[in-house]
Amino acid sequence: MPYVTLTEETAREYARANTSVFPNDAALECKEIGDGNLNMVFRIAEKSGTRSVIIKQSLPHARIDDSIAAPLDRARIESEMLVLHDRHCQGLAPKIHHYDREMYAIVMEDLSDHVVLRKGLIQGNTYPKLAEHIGEFIARSTFFTTDLGMDPEEKKVLQKSFVNPELCKITEDLVLSNPYFDAANNRIDVEIRERAEQNWQDSELKLQVMQLKEKFMTQAQALIHGDLHTGSIFVTKETTKAFDPEFGFFGPIGFDLGAILGNLILNHASQQWHMRDDAARRAAFRLYLLDTFREIWNVFDRNFRALWKQHVTTPMESNPLYLENYMARLFADAIGFAGCKMTRRIVGLAQVADIRSIPDTAVRAQAQIAVLDTAREFIMKRESYRSMDEVVETVRRYEAG
Amino acid sequence: MPYVTLTEETAREYARANTSVFPNDAALECKEIGDGNLNMVFRIAEKSGTRSVIIKQSLPHARIDDSIAAPLDRARIESEMLVLHDRHCQGLAPKIHHYDREMYAIVMEDLSDHVVLRKGLIQGNTYPKLAEHIGEFIARSTFFTTDLGMDPEEKKVLQKSFVNPELCKITEDLVLSNPYFDAANNRIDVEIRERAEQNWQDSELKLQVMQLKEKFMTQAQALIHGDLHTGSIFVTKETTKAFDPEFGFFGPIGFDLGAILGNLILNHASQQWHMRDDAARRAAFRLYLLDTFREIWNVFDRNFRALWKQHVTTPMESNPLYLENYMARLFADAIGFAGCKMTRRIVGLAQVADIRSIPDTAVRAQAQIAVLDTAREFIMKRESYRSMDEVVETVRRYEAG
Repeated sequence: MPYVTLTEETAREYARANTSVFPNDAALECKEIGDGNLNMVFRIAEKSGTRSVIIKQSLPHARIDDSIAAPLDRARIESEMLVLHDRHCQGLAPKIHHYDREMYAIVMEDLSDHVVLRKGLIQGNTYPKLAEHIGEFIARSTFFTTDLGMDPEEKKVLQKSFVNPELCKITEDLVLSNPYFDAANNRIDVEIRERAEQNWQDSELKLQVMQLKEKFMTQAQALIHGDLHTGSIFVTKETTKAFDPEFGFFGPIGFDLGAILGNLILNHASQQWHMRDDAARRAAFRLYLLDTFREIWNVFDRNFRALWKQHVTTPMESNPLYLENYMARLFADAIGFAGCKMTRRIVGLAQVADIRSIPDTAVRAQAQIAVLDTAREFIMKRESYRSMDEVVETVRRYEAG
Repeated sequence: MPYVTLTEETAREYARANTSVFPNDAALECKEIGDGNLNMVFRIAEKSGTRSVIIKQSLPHARIDDSIAAPLDRARIESEMLVLHDRHCQGLAPKIHHYDREMYAIVMEDLSDHVVLRKGLIQGNTYPKLAEHIGEFIARSTFFTTDLGMDPEEKKVLQKSFVNPELCKITEDLVLSNPYFDAANNRIDVEIRERAEQNWQDSELKLQVMQLKEKFMTQAQALIHGDLHTGSIFVTKETTKAFDPEFGFFGPIGFDLGAILGNLILNHASQQWHMRDDAARRAAFRLYLLDTFREIWNVFDRNFRALWKQHVTTPMESNPLYLENYMARLFADAIGFAGCKMTRRIVGLAQVADIRSIPDTAVRAQAQIAVLDTAREFIMKRESYRSMDEVVETVRRYEAG
């Protein structure tokens, strides 16, 4: 149907008409639960019963931040990404019931019983399935869109649908440029100004970041989520769902790995405050975070290798040396991009609640500097780490509190 | 105008109507000079006078080789490439008078006074401007389509127009895969079979080639010509014109450099036969070839750096360490892809007249093996060469005859 902005009433009937979730005669209620800025988000549920869905519709006439253009194409990319995630990673992303290119509307699984991972981790909750699920999610969502997991000619055509210039530019600027010079929109606490400026003088560091930026801009390795931090993952103790893939494009797989890994380290640093009153609990939780960090890589590595062995049969690609070489490069990319993601959350425009919610400026600065030092070593040493243990050792060495 | 296959008569009037090359009342003559398989090529010239043009029109219903699909989109890509070359590298590619998407017709400069470089080199002719022109052509055609020489958002959109799956597949198969295993369409002279099979057993070599293949398939560095061997360059003593850019796509710059560099070495090896009767002339011509080899890189390097210094001003990209790092990687890519181009012309489906025209099987085999050995060292050592002198030393070491 042609575009029209949904209301609670029309959304309810849209959900009934466009999905087979509800019985025909179900009594439904609908509530708009989004923040109403760029998207309308409706929850439609049975009045008596347990079935429910979410409709997310993009607003074409939203008051748009200058730095976020083309909202409607972003919605198309998000919906097409979710369809692919539903195909390749069933259960690890919101299930799609229906999507409508003309309405820029996605009818999807209701995840109201989940919590955003960042919030859960700040509260000190552990999620025992997280590493298994996210490692598998990244392995499957990327493998099947590499030249190894899909036909290279079809990949080139598919790539055209995921050209995402405006949202890539946000990452290129906010993650891979601005933190490394005196950009107007950086946010740098006065206590860490000197440390931030050290990075600006550090030509070797900036060279390494620039190489990662070039990789982000030119390496069409696989269709990646593009923004897979702890705020883009819903969790319960049993389930994990990656959502909001609007930054999706064909880029380096290590960028998705780095996003989640880097954000775990940000949380790790913030526990200096959040668990300040209980050193034993803090130590145990940090162990959980570092185990999760290590396990996300291990699960990814195991799944990706299994898919490779199952699907890669062509003479050049099936060379076992190539698999080892490929995984080693993914590892280095993951650690390097983790460093970039960490740095931008300390000195860049968009920061994270883990660190920002620390009210004590001295404690906050100590955590921030631990992150910046760890991040620098991640970026500089990414190609010489031989194992996750060595990476974790770096985190430990700079651990604050 | 809607598509219709041109004839000599309609081509003549098409040229008159769609260019301003000829005076209105000029008496024109037209002759079809193409091989008539995939393209019609017409030469339209004044009966009395010096003005002339070429019309190249793609045939939509040609008897198509299975391995060469989508001829019409290929024509679009060729014409759009030529327009960009005309803009960025004036004088170094055929001048475009007119191009017509519906007719798949390009009206371009008549280069009948030029010779194909491969033919000229086989005859032992020298072209003193070749290195200067080709170095500049590759520098300018690529720089202005990198993220350094054009707006990154516009680049991503432009990239969509140059997605070229069918022709990229030809390169992926014939250049970067088949020569390294017992592919059905390889052409391997019995005298060198054993040497060819050595490569098939060489897992380290195949790993390096696979890394170059991955780069070809995923690195959208710049809009490259894609097939810049000595058969795609027209020359006179004074002028140089790169033509036939139908393989154009966003790929690694080193692939264009490697194509011309590798083909010079193929000619170098073939002079063992072509100049067999004159050792002094052979030695001098080989010096010319190696000087040209070295100078193409040097001119490219100088031009690319000059463009960089003129145009790159953003904080991350203008880091002088990044320029050095970027050029070092281009150098390694160029040498590696040169090795791949050399190997495929010795054992692959599409070979070169330089070597193929040697009737003496023993002399030919000696040249072929010199090329394969040089190519292997190019591929394996590409990241450790510190200068063109070291590369030339490798050529010398394996020099046949």
